Amino acid sequence: MGNQSVTIGFIGVGVMGRGMVGNLLKNGYEVHVYTRTKAKAERVIGQGAIWHDSIAHLVPTASVVITMVGTPQDVEDVYFGEGSVLQLATLGTHLVDMTTSSPTLAVRIANAAQVRGLFALDAPVSGGDIGARDGTLSIMVGGDRDAYARMLPIFHAMGKIIVHQGAAGAGQHTKMSNQITVAANMIGVCEALAYAKRAGLDPTTVLQSVASGAAGSWSLSHLAPRIINGDFAPGFYVKHFIKDMKIALDSAREMGLKTPGLALALELYEQLATMGEEESGTQALYKLIDG
Amino acid sequence: MGNQSVTIGFIGVGVMGRGMVGNLLKNGYEVHVYTRTKAKAERVIGQGAIWHDSIAHLVPTASVVITMVGTPQDVEDVYFGEGSVLQLATLGTHLVDMTTSSPTLAVRIANAAQVRGLFALDAPVSGGDIGARDGTLSIMVGGDRDAYARMLPIFHAMGKIIVHQGAAGAGQHTKMSNQITVAANMIGVCEALAYAKRAGLDPTTVLQSVASGAAGSWSLSHLAPRIINGDFAPGFYVKHFIKDMKIALDSAREMGLKTPGLALALELYEQLATMGEEESGTQALYKLIDG
Repeated sequence: MGNQSVTIGFIGVGVMGRGMVGNLLKNGYEVHVYTRTKAKAERVIGQGAIWHDSIAHLVPTASVVITMVGTPQDVEDVYFGEGSVLQLATLGTHLVDMTTSSPTLAVRIANAAQVRGLFALDAPVSGGDIGARDGTLSIMVGGDRDAYARMLPIFHAMGKIIVHQGAAGAGQHTKMSNQITVAANMIGVCEALAYAKRAGLDPTTVLQSVASGAAGSWSLSHLAPRIINGDFAPGFYVKHFIKDMKIALDSAREMGLKTPGLALALELYEQLATMGEEESGTQALYKLIDG
Repeated sequence: MGNQSVTIGFIGVGVMGRGMVGNLLKNGYEVHVYTRTKAKAERVIGQGAIWHDSIAHLVPTASVVITMVGTPQDVEDVYFGEGSVLQLATLGTHLVDMTTSSPTLAVRIANAAQVRGLFALDAPVSGGDIGARDGTLSIMVGGDRDAYARMLPIFHAMGKIIVHQGAAGAGQHTKMSNQITVAANMIGVCEALAYAKRAGLDPTTVLQSVASGAAGSWSLSHLAPRIINGDFAPGFYVKHFIKDMKIALDSAREMGLKTPGLALALELYEQLATMGEEESGTQALYKLIDG
């Protein structure tokens, strides 16, 4: 599909969606937007996005509908609710859910789409608001390979690492693998820094010894320095990480897989949330460990 | 100290010590060696190291004694036992324990050394047998700063990243921070790969999506491919990792720090050891998670 023949309807213009819509516009796409709080869309409207007051108004105009909403419940409402995407999309429309959501729900959407002559992909991302703004996201895609191929130019407008991971749900499963890795690693980073502090070490000097070896990780290089500086701003919100870990843990259980590291991470982050840290960045786990 | 004026006594020529002695010899040092099993020293003897039949024979010849033995108990025996390093070292000798050992024991050695007019440093390493062979170890040093400065040429013969971390014990504490980070991360890597497999994904393709982002780590880049290939050879032995995690957990408890991630990792690795995997590489944790 050339940029001219595609009309994108983008649902959910939060901190991630804003950057992604910006990059679609920069790449010459016509982008129609809807989000629950119109104020959040004002910047992209200023950049040329076309506002609609409801999903029901937006969907029929679009040949590609992209959703970037909050929770699996939001995804379910947007796709299956009254006046929703699956009811209103015209034949042949491509539906791309980029929310981090349940793999099982992704399969349900794909099946319902197929029945209606629509194409659905699950395509969650990693890379955060900075990756969304800079167009450097990793996009992990599940669903029909031909539909994936047709969406590739759109994905390339928003991301740098675009990989088809398999059938419907495979994108979400890949994102869950990502979050499972991050979850345990954040515990290790926070425990190591708390240990270093208790031992009277200078944690910045400790990083000089350990960050480039077998202990090295993105979190150690990017989040440990923030922790050392007392900077607990998001980055990636504790509340969103909890949401993701719940999906991953449910999904692992459905598959009969025990994930004690993930279970521990979820437990610790839920404790952290009760300390009033839901709106902090994930590195705030340090406050619980060192508390 | 110039290379000519230094005679090094090296105790413990196992898989790590062998490489380290080789690099000291290459850098022109006179190296005397002792290790419990003489056969293990044969390669370095062939490279020019001078063999001694006991610690008691070796220590008096040396102006610098380096120890690279197995457990904290071995370190205690070598330094405090009958006919041992602290009894036999001549005034002004520098004692460098490069074993991964207890921070508390490192402080005891340093204090006992000071009383006897000796200089003791704790200087554990990371980088494994390959780092030892190639002279690219990270060396984390605790103890008197002037003694550290005098040992720097020797450290540079064996390592690439050499950092003075503080007073006696600080090197060991830094190594514990390293191992704490690794411990939790290994759980995450293994759970993520097991999850991917159960979800029917191709784990190598999953790595394409996740390895360079927020989930990225040394373990994910270096050990996950081995796991995928069914290669569980050490690398770093399960039995040694368990030893290190026990030291770290004891040390954390002494400081009143709770490390639930480390505690979980130790528990899982002890289970793994009972499965007969003590001699496997640490990536064998995957077998327990996927089991």
